[in-house]
Amino acid sequence: MAALFRGSRTLLQKSKDHVSLAMVCRSMASKTPVGFIGLGNMGIPMAQNLLKSGYPIIATDAFPESGKELQDQGAQLLDSPAEVAEKADRIITMLPSSPNVLEAYTGPNGILKKIKKGTLLIDSSTIDPSVAREMALASEKMGAVFMDAPVSGGVGAASLARLTFMVGGPEEEFTAAKELLGCMGANVLYCGQVGAGQAVKICNNMLLAIGMIGTAETMNLGIRLGLDPKLLTQVLNMSSGRCWSSDSYNPVPGVMEAVPSANNYLGGFGTTLMAKGLDLGLAQSTATSTSTPIPLGSLAHQIYRTMCARGYANKDFSSIFQFLREEEVQ
Amino acid sequence: MAALFRGSRTLLQKSKDHVSLAMVCRSMASKTPVGFIGLGNMGIPMAQNLLKSGYPIIATDAFPESGKELQDQGAQLLDSPAEVAEKADRIITMLPSSPNVLEAYTGPNGILKKIKKGTLLIDSSTIDPSVAREMALASEKMGAVFMDAPVSGGVGAASLARLTFMVGGPEEEFTAAKELLGCMGANVLYCGQVGAGQAVKICNNMLLAIGMIGTAETMNLGIRLGLDPKLLTQVLNMSSGRCWSSDSYNPVPGVMEAVPSANNYLGGFGTTLMAKGLDLGLAQSTATSTSTPIPLGSLAHQIYRTMCARGYANKDFSSIFQFLREEEVQ
Amino acid sequence: MAALFRGSRTLLQKSKDHVSLAMVCRSMASKTPVGFIGLGNMGIPMAQNLLKSGYPIIATDAFPESGKELQDQGAQLLDSPAEVAEKADRIITMLPSSPNVLEAYTGPNGILKKIKKGTLLIDSSTIDPSVAREMALASEKMGAVFMDAPVSGGVGAASLARLTFMVGGPEEEFTAAKELLGCMGANVLYCGQVGAGQAVKICNNMLLAIGMIGTAETMNLGIRLGLDPKLLTQVLNMSSGRCWSSDSYNPVPGVMEAVPSANNYLGGFGTTLMAKGLDLGLAQSTATSTSTPIPLGSLAHQIYRTMCARGYANKDFSSIFQFLREEEVQ
Amino acid sequence: MAALFRGSRTLLQKSKDHVSLAMVCRSMASKTPVGFIGLGNMGIPMAQNLLKSGYPIIATDAFPESGKELQDQGAQLLDSPAEVAEKADRIITMLPSSPNVLEAYTGPNGILKKIKKGTLLIDSSTIDPSVAREMALASEKMGAVFMDAPVSGGVGAASLARLTFMVGGPEEEFTAAKELLGCMGANVLYCGQVGAGQAVKICNNMLLAIGMIGTAETMNLGIRLGLDPKLLTQVLNMSSGRCWSSDSYNPVPGVMEAVPSANNYLGGFGTTLMAKGLDLGLAQSTATSTSTPIPLGSLAHQIYRTMCARGYANKDFSSIFQFLREEEVQ
Repeated sequence: MAALFRGSRTLLQKSKDHVSLAMVCRSMASKTPVGFIGLGNMGIPMAQNLLKSGYPIIATDAFPESGKELQDQGAQLLDSPAEVAEKADRIITMLPSSPNVLEAYTGPNGILKKIKKGTLLIDSSTIDPSVAREMALASEKMGAVFMDAPVSGGVGAASLARLTFMVGGPEEEFTAAKELLGCMGANVLYCGQVGAGQAVKICNNMLLAIGMIGTAETMNLGIRLGLDPKLLTQVLNMSSGRCWSSDSYNPVPGVMEAVPSANNYLGGFGTTLMAKGLDLGLAQSTATSTSTPIPLGSLAHQIYRTMCARGYANKDFSSIFQFLREEEVQ
Repeated sequence: MAALFRGSRTLLQKSKDHVSLAMVCRSMASKTPVGFIGLGNMGIPMAQNLLKSGYPIIATDAFPESGKELQDQGAQLLDSPAEVAEKADRIITMLPSSPNVLEAYTGPNGILKKIKKGTLLIDSSTIDPSVAREMALASEKMGAVFMDAPVSGGVGAASLARLTFMVGGPEEEFTAAKELLGCMGANVLYCGQVGAGQAVKICNNMLLAIGMIGTAETMNLGIRLGLDPKLLTQVLNMSSGRCWSSDSYNPVPGVMEAVPSANNYLGGFGTTLMAKGLDLGLAQSTATSTSTPIPLGSLAHQIYRTMCARGYANKDFSSIFQFLREEEVQ
Repeated sequence: MAALFRGSRTLLQKSKDHVSLAMVCRSMASKTPVGFIGLGNMGIPMAQNLLKSGYPIIATDAFPESGKELQDQGAQLLDSPAEVAEKADRIITMLPSSPNVLEAYTGPNGILKKIKKGTLLIDSSTIDPSVAREMALASEKMGAVFMDAPVSGGVGAASLARLTFMVGGPEEEFTAAKELLGCMGANVLYCGQVGAGQAVKICNNMLLAIGMIGTAETMNLGIRLGLDPKLLTQVLNMSSGRCWSSDSYNPVPGVMEAVPSANNYLGGFGTTLMAKGLDLGLAQSTATSTSTPIPLGSLAHQIYRTMCARGYANKDFSSIFQFLREEEVQ
Repeated sequence: MAALFRGSRTLLQKSKDHVSLAMVCRSMASKTPVGFIGLGNMGIPMAQNLLKSGYPIIATDAFPESGKELQDQGAQLLDSPAEVAEKADRIITMLPSSPNVLEAYTGPNGILKKIKKGTLLIDSSTIDPSVAREMALASEKMGAVFMDAPVSGGVGAASLARLTFMVGGPEEEFTAAKELLGCMGANVLYCGQVGAGQAVKICNNMLLAIGMIGTAETMNLGIRLGLDPKLLTQVLNMSSGRCWSSDSYNPVPGVMEAVPSANNYLGGFGTTLMAKGLDLGLAQSTATSTSTPIPLGSLAHQIYRTMCARGYANKDFSSIFQFLREEEVQ
């Protein structure tokens, strides 16, 4: 259903002349190489899933040794984002934070130094929406298209190709982005113009954090009031207290299987959330810059900050349940 | 499926001799009269649904005029709970708060003054679990069985017989309770020993309040960041931010139909929650008495308190979205 | 300046006939025995200071061995509050919480069982104002006068007779109360009718807790921003951020001497506050029952609850600074 | 005690050669002209106080009409910061926020375009400490010295020359800065290296906001519990609940005179705080960037955000008391 040649798109947007005929050459239907920049815990399994789907991968990472395994699996490793940009006209970036994204795109060996016109750039890092918009502008000047596509789900979901991608950018590019993202995730959701993917992720994660702490407080209170946690969970999940943290990621050990609470709060996608506090910091700073009151979001942020200060930085974010419980022995 | 005569139950619990043979006479299979005490906004439609299911109703209320309509529909109105207890061996109470419950059960014209042995007492009021346990003890001394069965859902759900009942009490009485409660609700959930219904309701409503305020903050932040509220809702509901307030009772006008936010925050079951602040007060006081930290629950309580002080007492609890938004004109 | 015989007071309040001529016999000017009930960490030094001021002490405690040292210093030990009430017409109670106060006054061996008309009862425990009013009513029925006089300050202040007493009760009895309280404290403050002492203490301690956590957050933030904590403290104390926690009880080690932060958060009057969470629980419950929004007070309560759950129950309440700081090693 | 010529200072800091002999010419002892940039509600009275102290003023503002009155009083008005920098070697800036400061210093007509070597730049705006450090670096490159000196106190204090200045910058320049700042304020406090003035102000205002909301909650709770607000204030101020908001700026109408609460929350220095939410936003963002937990500070921020959304943006920040009180009529 995707056009054979992306150039057909140019017919639809005459006003953007600088992203013009050069785009004709971006390949889509055939499985031409895909660039992948950022081979961390998330990037590796994501790139592996693209490989499995038959896409040749041209990758790079600031720490070359990160790419060893991927190389053994058939990927080509290059020295810098610029070199990747020379060889691929679809590039995915998956980096820890805004400065890394800035470096990978606009740094001295960055993508934009050698980018081909018409290239599709998809950034799956979690960064400030305003930085995403900045990158989109810089890319557009070089005749490329930038989309933000941060993910929901952690290392486990990445391995199983069950991530959710929240995508922002020109709607007419969504199909092209989805072709690749669909190999790495179960849901690829269009959220609006560039930056919207990040904005939606910030919103989702803030509500997630609130729901998780709320669930932990509620379960703890119920247990103190003498309730059986499994029974309480069952009823909550049939009632208006229901939320993802209660029905899919319950923080109380023994209530659900195959979640971090069943494994001493190890693993899980929350590790990142906790260790970096990144997403709630973004919620906080975008709320401050838009003068939006977020009392619970803000308190959730502070609670996770405090947990990090108290030694919980490397546990899953559902360990808030453990944090709130009375210690057995002093 | 219910035993013809409840007396058969006594075989199962020899240890409770005082609730013994007298119970043989409590009727169940045939539709003998059911007592109903408390004819407020919730009590009226609940009693009407019992009537519709074929149960004769013997009712009373502190304000006799409240029962007028019900009387026209065939219910018998008496002057006091004691008189109701004389004539019915299954009694439902639906009262505003603990003092009313104390009065209705143990007051000078209260149920226990004239209660028949073996009577099944079901209290659907929302009260402190410890008061429920106190009533259960007092009832047991009179040879009666007390169960707490607070509801989730408001006037609308009550009218449509779509309430959720959270039931606490002896498990062997649950079938008997469910026979009646099932006529008034869509879900009748067993939660544990007496008081457990209240405890679960407190827990559910605390998590609900947190989820609602969290959803309102999140939607407001998303809108400020330029997102379309319908699209944002869609993505949240497919992601880990999902909760009942986002997918079934969205607080943003225009996102869903047939919810209070679509109707200027009128109607809805939240009115009670807001006007009385009752349930969060119970969460707070049970948390205090059990030394349980509930940071978000506590802040949610304070936010609703503040809203009541600022003129929102009669709006639905989803009006938190309106409360947090910038006023158009000063 | 005090009347020789308190009976002269009856001239002033003819309306309270039941507290009438019998009061003539309550001695004041001479140092007649004073009853003291409750010989805990606070009660002992308080009673000792009365002894030092020349008042014979007749004491009792639920744990008789608590009174050993006091007995060696000259106090008479009796078996129950009732026996104390038989022998003294001025009685001070200093007990852990409401149930103990109820027991000591209205229990089977309670004060009111043997109280003499005209007795002056001063309760320095920290309890709910409504319990204080209840005790006052019960005492009045027996012809006695009850005043609430909770203290500010801890064991150290008690030893040095530098407590602050917040007194509620009939204004015309204040002089009589002050005569005794002045031997144990540096400030004896009249706060209003009975219960007002408790209400003021609840208010003071809520604001204290907020101020302490606020000071700890502020100092921690300042240090993270590169400020010198001593210099920061100096400037705060000359500015609008100044509060008792910043200028008299600074929570940062090294800033002040002779405060718990200089001693690994040991000692200090906060121990009780932290261990029992008592006072903030009272703030919370009185706020709930009066529908008063206390967002910061409530969060302060939750933070101290969480600290207790995390092993801080026996440290001074200024250890919130330590709790918020990044741990050195994980 | 100040050196006649500042050049003597260069002997002390040979390592900073680029801020060298040129500084010899900055005048100090005699009352040479002082530049003043930013003639808003605060800037005007500050400049007037310098005039009163005998300093010729050379001023400018983005809105020239702002300077009319000052001109009538003898100040010279110029068109841009650059022109001011040409004529004065001591310049004070008092601007609304970071972008204005950036513009005034580094903009196309900014100070640094025409600055003379050795010029002393004092910025009394309230901005992010990192922006202050950035300005200091840029100034240093031009051979000038930049100090941050944000103020505590509002329009009233500015008029009466009773501001408090919190000063950051090279300690050896403090005397020179104090000479001018002392004409406009009652306290001039040295806080540390450049940026420290801002950091201290952020800290002070965060603690101030917490103290004010805490005081409002406490006074409201006390009143609900039946206490007399004046009596409650008196006792708090003698006890550990004491803070600047309780003893110097009480938010309850009728308790103190000559504070905004006595005047329907008009006037007062809080207006700015409330209207811009500026300072708490800075606390929030510096806390986020330094991973510092500030639970109460953060909630205070959110409460003021909510108040602004509810129509309180132009009232004094002590109007939090009014905001929390029950409305008379719904």
